[in-house]
Amino acid sequence: MNEDQIYAMRHSLAHITAQAVQHLWPEAKFGVGPVVENGFYYDIDLGEVKISEEDFPKIEKEMRKVIAANYPFERSEKAIDEAIDWADAAHQPYKTELLNDLKRAGTTVAKDLDTETLGVAAEGEGAVENVSFYTDGDFTDLCRGPHAESTGKVGAFKLMRVAGAYWRGNEKNAQMQRLYGVAFATQEELDRYLHMLEEAKQRDHRKLGQELDLFVTSPLVGAGLPLFTPRGTVLREELAKFSNELRENFGFRKVWTPHITKIDLYKTSGHWDKFGDELFLVKSQETSDEFALKPMNCPHHTQIYASQPRSYRDLPVRYCETTTDYRDEKTGELGGLSRVRSLTQDDSHVFARGDQIEQEINQLLSAARDMYQALGMKLRVRLSYRDDGKGYLGDEILWETAQEQLKAAVEANNLEFFEATGEAAFYGPKIDFMATDAIGREHQVATVQLDFVQPLRFELEYVGESGFKETPVMIHCALMGSIERFLSVYIEHTGGRFPLWVAPEQLRIIQVKDSDEVVGFVRRLSEKAAEHGVRYVVDESNESVGKKIRAAAKLKVPYTLVIGEKEVAEGKLTPRVRDDLAVDGREEQGYVVDQFFVSLANEAKARASKSSL
Amino acid sequence: MNEDQIYAMRHSLAHITAQAVQHLWPEAKFGVGPVVENGFYYDIDLGEVKISEEDFPKIEKEMRKVIAANYPFERSEKAIDEAIDWADAAHQPYKTELLNDLKRAGTTVAKDLDTETLGVAAEGEGAVENVSFYTDGDFTDLCRGPHAESTGKVGAFKLMRVAGAYWRGNEKNAQMQRLYGVAFATQEELDRYLHMLEEAKQRDHRKLGQELDLFVTSPLVGAGLPLFTPRGTVLREELAKFSNELRENFGFRKVWTPHITKIDLYKTSGHWDKFGDELFLVKSQETSDEFALKPMNCPHHTQIYASQPRSYRDLPVRYCETTTDYRDEKTGELGGLSRVRSLTQDDSHVFARGDQIEQEINQLLSAARDMYQALGMKLRVRLSYRDDGKGYLGDEILWETAQEQLKAAVEANNLEFFEATGEAAFYGPKIDFMATDAIGREHQVATVQLDFVQPLRFELEYVGESGFKETPVMIHCALMGSIERFLSVYIEHTGGRFPLWVAPEQLRIIQVKDSDEVVGFVRRLSEKAAEHGVRYVVDESNESVGKKIRAAAKLKVPYTLVIGEKEVAEGKLTPRVRDDLAVDGREEQGYVVDQFFVSLANEAKARASKSSL
Repeated sequence: MNEDQIYAMRHSLAHITAQAVQHLWPEAKFGVGPVVENGFYYDIDLGEVKISEEDFPKIEKEMRKVIAANYPFERSEKAIDEAIDWADAAHQPYKTELLNDLKRAGTTVAKDLDTETLGVAAEGEGAVENVSFYTDGDFTDLCRGPHAESTGKVGAFKLMRVAGAYWRGNEKNAQMQRLYGVAFATQEELDRYLHMLEEAKQRDHRKLGQELDLFVTSPLVGAGLPLFTPRGTVLREELAKFSNELRENFGFRKVWTPHITKIDLYKTSGHWDKFGDELFLVKSQETSDEFALKPMNCPHHTQIYASQPRSYRDLPVRYCETTTDYRDEKTGELGGLSRVRSLTQDDSHVFARGDQIEQEINQLLSAARDMYQALGMKLRVRLSYRDDGKGYLGDEILWETAQEQLKAAVEANNLEFFEATGEAAFYGPKIDFMATDAIGREHQVATVQLDFVQPLRFELEYVGESGFKETPVMIHCALMGSIERFLSVYIEHTGGRFPLWVAPEQLRIIQVKDSDEVVGFVRRLSEKAAEHGVRYVVDESNESVGKKIRAAAKLKVPYTLVIGEKEVAEGKLTPRVRDDLAVDGREEQGYVVDQFFVSLANEAKARASKSSL
Repeated sequence: MNEDQIYAMRHSLAHITAQAVQHLWPEAKFGVGPVVENGFYYDIDLGEVKISEEDFPKIEKEMRKVIAANYPFERSEKAIDEAIDWADAAHQPYKTELLNDLKRAGTTVAKDLDTETLGVAAEGEGAVENVSFYTDGDFTDLCRGPHAESTGKVGAFKLMRVAGAYWRGNEKNAQMQRLYGVAFATQEELDRYLHMLEEAKQRDHRKLGQELDLFVTSPLVGAGLPLFTPRGTVLREELAKFSNELRENFGFRKVWTPHITKIDLYKTSGHWDKFGDELFLVKSQETSDEFALKPMNCPHHTQIYASQPRSYRDLPVRYCETTTDYRDEKTGELGGLSRVRSLTQDDSHVFARGDQIEQEINQLLSAARDMYQALGMKLRVRLSYRDDGKGYLGDEILWETAQEQLKAAVEANNLEFFEATGEAAFYGPKIDFMATDAIGREHQVATVQLDFVQPLRFELEYVGESGFKETPVMIHCALMGSIERFLSVYIEHTGGRFPLWVAPEQLRIIQVKDSDEVVGFVRRLSEKAAEHGVRYVVDESNESVGKKIRAAAKLKVPYTLVIGEKEVAEGKLTPRVRDDLAVDGREEQGYVVDQFFVSLANEAKARASKSSL
């Protein structure tokens, strides 16, 4: 099936759902029933009757009857007044309301309504004359279509949930019941989707965040302001270190800027006008200066660039900074790490000459590619170009050559890409990276963005080869974007089974007996672990060995050593390796102590995704 | 001379200064003339006459005449009305004003005035009856004393500067001229002090900050909010890394907390009541929650501790975090890095049982000792205990044993210390570290502070061995305190000649010719440098070798390699070593490339203060 067919199929299932509900509860009043991502819903008013998940088998059974009957979907038209009479006669007050509105306001309003459900082709302006209906078997609905050929051709579906929804989204209106379903062309696709949902639930980063003790929130600190425990802080730091190292290889150098600034900085950059209402304002009790928490770092970095004269030979100047920005997000939208008020960016800015763009982009793309390869996520990129419209700032020729350089760099890096004309920012073209996680979801992650405007607004310059002053181009790039948001993706991608290099705890040493020999050996192992920079925990509690092993497994620790008298006597280590890290066909063997820790340190250093033991 | 004698000597010099001024400008009206750090001043009204530094030799010559005459300082008393008559007759309106105020308000006000200058012993309450005067030769001044025996016994002095000062510090009053001098018991001490001042001027961190390109400020960002360039960021990061590593060795683990919080956190901690006006308030446009920028990190860390149940076996729990706090300092008090609004703390907190205090303090002291030893600064510590007064919170027995444990730990670490009763915070005893810099100035740096109160306010607990809930003790510790302020000290301590491990640029490679051989060799060296993690810069400009060497010297780069055809042919490296790093008596010799970089990397790793080459 193509996209259009899947759309028609989902829309047809919305009708069939309503039809089944009407069979079961003939008094049902229907609202609208559109297609949504992966499925559909229908808003239904059943008066005092509340549908629950326990009713789903019954409704689905009724739907299957309609499907089995394989009714054709038949289109018909009625004049608007005739349609209103039909809705009245059918005791469908919501349909009546929609049709009356439509009649009153014509196509202008129809555009704002759900025209597919309304059964109008809301093109042009003026009075609505006819509306269309679709009928399958004993059910007729006001509808624009299109639909599947017949009720038998609607693929595989499942009702998922029911939730309250106000009629037309207005809380002053009646509350209806919104019945959601998902639908795919084949049962296999549906099963895959349901499995992915189940996996996603298991991997929910909020759940894992708690189970693995990664981050916490506090009502005293506030929503959207997570605090990171020692374990979570390791994740943040290791990922940020990797991200920085990849760029430091290309000459990026760290800078540091404060988290607050006079708003003058954002007035000059232009962010104040565009994003002023997303800023946290800071009130000084000592000065009349107006401050804000920084929502982004580029304006700060321009001030370091501008602090001394630059020549064409000094360019490119490359700064990177892992620093926290603050954005005044709505409280209702905050959840786990996906959306937070404190966003730590692995940010960087290049100040370059026009002829250096391709090389710089090239290096940044290669850094992004290396990063996501190591993280085991497939990347594809969107190249966002300008269109012929107005509102783009900066020199047109610069835009053109820049866009060519972007594309050349993407091709040179063998990255899967697609081009999107008209998707550029007003200040320059950009590259967005989409990464696919282990359960097939695609997330927007890194961006590389050209900027022709901020250098002008801040009057940045360098002395060109000719001796004249010229304006540099800025290149914004973050490999992860917000570390918090990226962690929400990465925790779910790995399901908390972090590879060694990023694992908060890399090695658990389980002490089986507290004899002098065993305690001494464990101490020696601890010292070796510390020496090799291994993050380890010794479990010397009085629990049973089985319980201790399960405790380590629950925390998804990559390696576990159980140390009893046998190990002391043999002087050999036989680590338990976490399932997903183990390499098939490798015989379990003992390691002498030094060899074990050297292997471990090398595996971590290589940022390997499999065990080297 | 003891402290009291030096005090009397400096005060006598204030009189002698006024006396000399009166000889030169008989119409002079005198304000007050107190002792200040290292010297004294006198406020003088000379009407239209402006004293300048050019007048200092003349005034000093006149002072020396008075000193040579060796007049005894003779004390006398007058009744308050008689004293007022004397001041009127002497045409000293400022003295008249002070005496009248004194008469009106009695000793209560006298306490707020400069009683030494006023010549009253402002003890007790009630009317002032008599005031004292001191006379030397032809000069008499209202004065409480004490003074040197005679004008001949006033050590060595020098007039330093003259500045405007409003009478009684009120800008509505007349502007006077404040004439400053410094004075020491011997000429040698004075010379040493003047030399130190000269050195301090050379080492001024604001001057070096610019010369060495370490940090910048921007009027768009605001006062007290420095931005760190790549070079300055290396300093911050290396010092913070060292500070953290020293504690990570003792089981501290990094955490991360946001820079803003609901003010509820500081209301619970008690900081809101005490320091509310030092906080930057943060206004959300999305929620009615009230936020503030965090001025300290302990309350945040309590929330991580409190996020899960703790048992006596889990303690101590040790967190460290290098994070930036914000304090709403007065604009007029901001300067360079000494006082800033953005303070990055190398902070840490231990949550411990009462019986663990000594061991924890011991470890922290040893970390502080190691740090300052590596930094080449002498440490001494002040042990601040409670006195018998009220207002101290927490269990008295806990206070007593804690103070004993503090002292035992200080002694175990062989630290020079002194004890200060009554200097503890209300919530616990503490240890303050004073570090002496290369030019003899002492700075307060690290602190270790016990806290019996915050754990109670946040209801922190752990399950004790007995099964009952108990309250942990908190131990606050920062080894540098504010990194910005510490950098202002450290930059001046080193004069910008940073040891290798902390030097922003460790190696400068000067390329002498651009022949293929030389360029290739320089490239090979660059690769080796990168491989060994050496921070290097290649100078391939077209300047002369001499100019390039001077450029590297100006930036105080530890090692410089000049690479021409000779070096390529020999394949040996003969580094130029910065003066202060060089070890006497070591013959300059060539190094093969690998050997050179291995030595460099080892020297940096060892955080050595001398060259290993």
